[in-house]
Amino acid sequence: MARDRPLLSSRSSSELSRGLAEEDALLTGQPTTRSGPRTWNFWREIGLFVWAVIATAAVIVLAVIYQKAQDSSNGAPPLSGKRNLVFMVSDGMGPTSLSLTRSFMQYTEGAPFNKQLILDKHFIGQSRTRSASSLITDSAAGATAFSCALKSYNGAISVLPNHQPCGTVLEAAKKAGYMTGLVVTTRITDATPATFASHVHMRQEEDLIAQQMVGDHPLGRVVDLIFGGGKCHFLPNSSLSSCRADDKDIVALAQKNGFNYISDRQGFNDLKGGKSIKLPMLGLFADGDIPFEIDRRNEDDHYPSLHEMAETALTALSEATRDSKKGFFLMIEGSRIDHAGHFNDPAAQVHEVLAYDKTMTSVLDFLERDSTQGVMVSTSDHETGGLAAARQLHASYPQYLWYPGPLANASHSAERLDLNYKAFLLSHPSAPKATQRQFVEDSITSGLGIMDASDEEIDALVAQPEISLYLFADMISRRSQTGWSTHGHSAADVNIYSSDPVLAKALVGNHENTEVGDFLREFLDVDVESVTKELREKGIKMMGMEEGESWMGRLPEEGERIDGGDHLKTYEGEFRRRGLEGGVHVGCGCGMH
Amino acid sequence: MARDRPLLSSRSSSELSRGLAEEDALLTGQPTTRSGPRTWNFWREIGLFVWAVIATAAVIVLAVIYQKAQDSSNGAPPLSGKRNLVFMVSDGMGPTSLSLTRSFMQYTEGAPFNKQLILDKHFIGQSRTRSASSLITDSAAGATAFSCALKSYNGAISVLPNHQPCGTVLEAAKKAGYMTGLVVTTRITDATPATFASHVHMRQEEDLIAQQMVGDHPLGRVVDLIFGGGKCHFLPNSSLSSCRADDKDIVALAQKNGFNYISDRQGFNDLKGGKSIKLPMLGLFADGDIPFEIDRRNEDDHYPSLHEMAETALTALSEATRDSKKGFFLMIEGSRIDHAGHFNDPAAQVHEVLAYDKTMTSVLDFLERDSTQGVMVSTSDHETGGLAAARQLHASYPQYLWYPGPLANASHSAERLDLNYKAFLLSHPSAPKATQRQFVEDSITSGLGIMDASDEEIDALVAQPEISLYLFADMISRRSQTGWSTHGHSAADVNIYSSDPVLAKALVGNHENTEVGDFLREFLDVDVESVTKELREKGIKMMGMEEGESWMGRLPEEGERIDGGDHLKTYEGEFRRRGLEGGVHVGCGCGMH
Repeated sequence: MARDRPLLSSRSSSELSRGLAEEDALLTGQPTTRSGPRTWNFWREIGLFVWAVIATAAVIVLAVIYQKAQDSSNGAPPLSGKRNLVFMVSDGMGPTSLSLTRSFMQYTEGAPFNKQLILDKHFIGQSRTRSASSLITDSAAGATAFSCALKSYNGAISVLPNHQPCGTVLEAAKKAGYMTGLVVTTRITDATPATFASHVHMRQEEDLIAQQMVGDHPLGRVVDLIFGGGKCHFLPNSSLSSCRADDKDIVALAQKNGFNYISDRQGFNDLKGGKSIKLPMLGLFADGDIPFEIDRRNEDDHYPSLHEMAETALTALSEATRDSKKGFFLMIEGSRIDHAGHFNDPAAQVHEVLAYDKTMTSVLDFLERDSTQGVMVSTSDHETGGLAAARQLHASYPQYLWYPGPLANASHSAERLDLNYKAFLLSHPSAPKATQRQFVEDSITSGLGIMDASDEEIDALVAQPEISLYLFADMISRRSQTGWSTHGHSAADVNIYSSDPVLAKALVGNHENTEVGDFLREFLDVDVESVTKELREKGIKMMGMEEGESWMGRLPEEGERIDGGDHLKTYEGEFRRRGLEGGVHVGCGCGMH
Repeated sequence: MARDRPLLSSRSSSELSRGLAEEDALLTGQPTTRSGPRTWNFWREIGLFVWAVIATAAVIVLAVIYQKAQDSSNGAPPLSGKRNLVFMVSDGMGPTSLSLTRSFMQYTEGAPFNKQLILDKHFIGQSRTRSASSLITDSAAGATAFSCALKSYNGAISVLPNHQPCGTVLEAAKKAGYMTGLVVTTRITDATPATFASHVHMRQEEDLIAQQMVGDHPLGRVVDLIFGGGKCHFLPNSSLSSCRADDKDIVALAQKNGFNYISDRQGFNDLKGGKSIKLPMLGLFADGDIPFEIDRRNEDDHYPSLHEMAETALTALSEATRDSKKGFFLMIEGSRIDHAGHFNDPAAQVHEVLAYDKTMTSVLDFLERDSTQGVMVSTSDHETGGLAAARQLHASYPQYLWYPGPLANASHSAERLDLNYKAFLLSHPSAPKATQRQFVEDSITSGLGIMDASDEEIDALVAQPEISLYLFADMISRRSQTGWSTHGHSAADVNIYSSDPVLAKALVGNHENTEVGDFLREFLDVDVESVTKELREKGIKMMGMEEGESWMGRLPEEGERIDGGDHLKTYEGEFRRRGLEGGVHVGCGCGMH
């Protein structure tokens, strides 16, 4: 065996050392000038060969590295394989909410001025929000821009101005084999979640939305996991907690369609953070909205928090897609930042934004440790309230100041104090004015932490309980010097955030809200157009509709207001149980937004 | 000569073709298996050599390209050599100004909803604006964060809370050999430009600022080009147009220090766009502020526009540094976006923002065609007004709408109508109420384009001419449904823009305003610390100051308001000429911001 003999050593070194130089000398008769040994020629060749191979290998390695660097600097890399997408929506959060909440956080934590929110560190761009029908969008048209990547009219739930449904990224994801989820703190039938998994001409048709969401839908069931509020739209109107107009039992329908149903904190706890969950899952934890975080934090045994729901959903969807070639699409909404804006309640708002910030941390942590490639993109549908971190209280020129202290002093939302006050009035219909006044004063001191309420403020609350929601909120806003221009929405551009500015390169900078929708479908690489086609074909014969009736509900009448702004809080089961039927919120417009 | 004989051809090809194979055969006595010609060996060697050289060259080329790609994707490339920096400041422009102006532009141009402003296309981040003394900054502390890259108190002009001056990026640039320029539409002595080239404890000391700006400064003259308003602070109080407290002639001082001085449109035109200019140049085109663009556009023969001043400055500084190893630092301010915010005048504001947008185009065009590497960075010092593109006018829930039309109908600013009204009252001291009322009605129809003024609105203007500025502006705001929370500033984060997100990588995302200052000095690679040291050393013996007096002016007294908010419009030379001394703007606080 030649094992001990190197391949190239078949000749002795002396043999090899006779080189070209000597041979040249022999052939030409001229003395050689070369002084190397005979093997010079051979080794030189070997050396050249090794050099060339190494250099070539280096070229290939560098070219590949460069290509990857180009991909990551000039655009999102063309993705391949399994992927997860977490789309976060901060409903109603405008740019000023960030400044307000950041300063509040620094104030309560005693943190230095340069301590940022988690959100701040992931800021990548801004979104322009106008709808097809107005310079100021509602949440329905705003979320349709995300779900369908198309502009529509205010009030439209994934329906276009031509009254045709548009396929959504969630529906297309489901058809492509992804698992899908919706996690919100408002009613799951409210505009933002609705646009991903249902189609109605008017957002007010929440009964119909509930029905579609659990599978009475041209494509059948498209959502695998639902966490949120809005139970009252799933219960037949024979139930005390129902807010449906009919006697349909949507929970039973959901169960018939395979959903596992939970309806309280215990049921949520039993999911063990998502490790013990059976999909499809319908989890409804409040009759209407889940309470504002400022109130919920003291009722933790009744309602899960947004970040708990998000973490559980992430774990569940991740486990469920472990052996799949496709990942999941999960929409998580900080729904009630918007409501705090509508109520002009800055104390409720900063807690909602902080809860959203904490939820983003949960999502980032998940993406960080998960082995499947994934991205988080977060934006708002619009600004709410025309919030300003400044407020001129008098005709004299204002100081350049606002005070986070009054927000920190408030232990409850204005909404909660308003509900308590109305409950008190209902249960004490003939209470003397002095008793009513005492109740108001106690609410102010214990609920808002305000010790210097003026007689005028107390008088107004005693005289006008129907607008106590606004009056309570205004007491905090004035003391903190927080400004508001409206109880409705505004046209400000809103912020975009992402876990990865490279993967989300398409959203860096200033963009139309429909471009957010474009990104979602492109990241998942799903065919939304074919879903649109299928919806239109199958929709025609849906649900045994009567002549002329559409599966997408009633068409709005000429001039009918459908952006949710004129709605009463009729969904609020609390009201029914206490005998409150409509009317109490007249003039407040604090229902659906 | 062997010129015709290639170096490697000293042997014939037949000689060369006797290769190693044959030689091997001769030496070993074994038959050769090689069948190539005698030159095979040689050519193989050449081939290997060429291969190795090409591959090596490719490695080097790829490595260099990769390094550059890495630089541009992971951070700003380490700059070397000559460079220009254009720093643009949109004073008082918050995020909502963009949405408001964009929709106004689309409305007036009949453009589609997705037409962007030039600004939009260069959006890269946001800046947090709080000062050392308040959650809401004034322009002095805001601009000191840019000039010194340090937080200071509201009212501070490049002076720190310890009453020591801080060196500015402009001063350091000048010392490093750069040419420097300041272009503004307000008084050149106002806070933003002042922080770059002067140091005073209180921004109100505009007389002293004027003096320092033309060279009565510890470092001597530091600015090469000045364009703006504020002439009244440069004229001795013996002059009718002066607003100085003393009889110093700052124009004469400037000329003594080498400045060429121009004071009107003709002088500006003679500069031929910067091609015919002698630096240093002091160009003051208005006694106080240059009129709002909404008014100036009809007085183009009196006042140059911001973009004309910017273009002229760019050309002048570029020419002046043609043969220099250093480029220039130019600060351009859209100063009066802020004033439109203070006055809550949305019509004036959109024209100011559009003028700023046009100026950014001029800067981008310059950078595009200029051979010296350069970058433009733009941001605001703060938001003004708590502007909202939405306004609730009634107790009933608002529609989701705002109307650009009323902004387009206005042909004049509220400020101009207010000045005209006061001039009328002064010149008709005993005019009957009916005449006064007629004047007001004419102002409303011809100046604001409003045809449906209510009796209440007209009555208020007749009864309270001292606040007519606010009343006129409010008529437009209400009709357009534009909201405001204050006549002062707010704490909203403001936008950052750049011509080059790679060079300005350090400002992509959400940043503290001092990081903008950090970027300026780092881009120019100048030593600001040594300037601070020099200022402190030389300042001590400056200007033959009396015992205990500082070259930086008076120290604020305990509790004294120094953020400019309590100031009257005493600088407005117009007032003096017309016999108006103070007082007319009491309660309006619409002086310096």
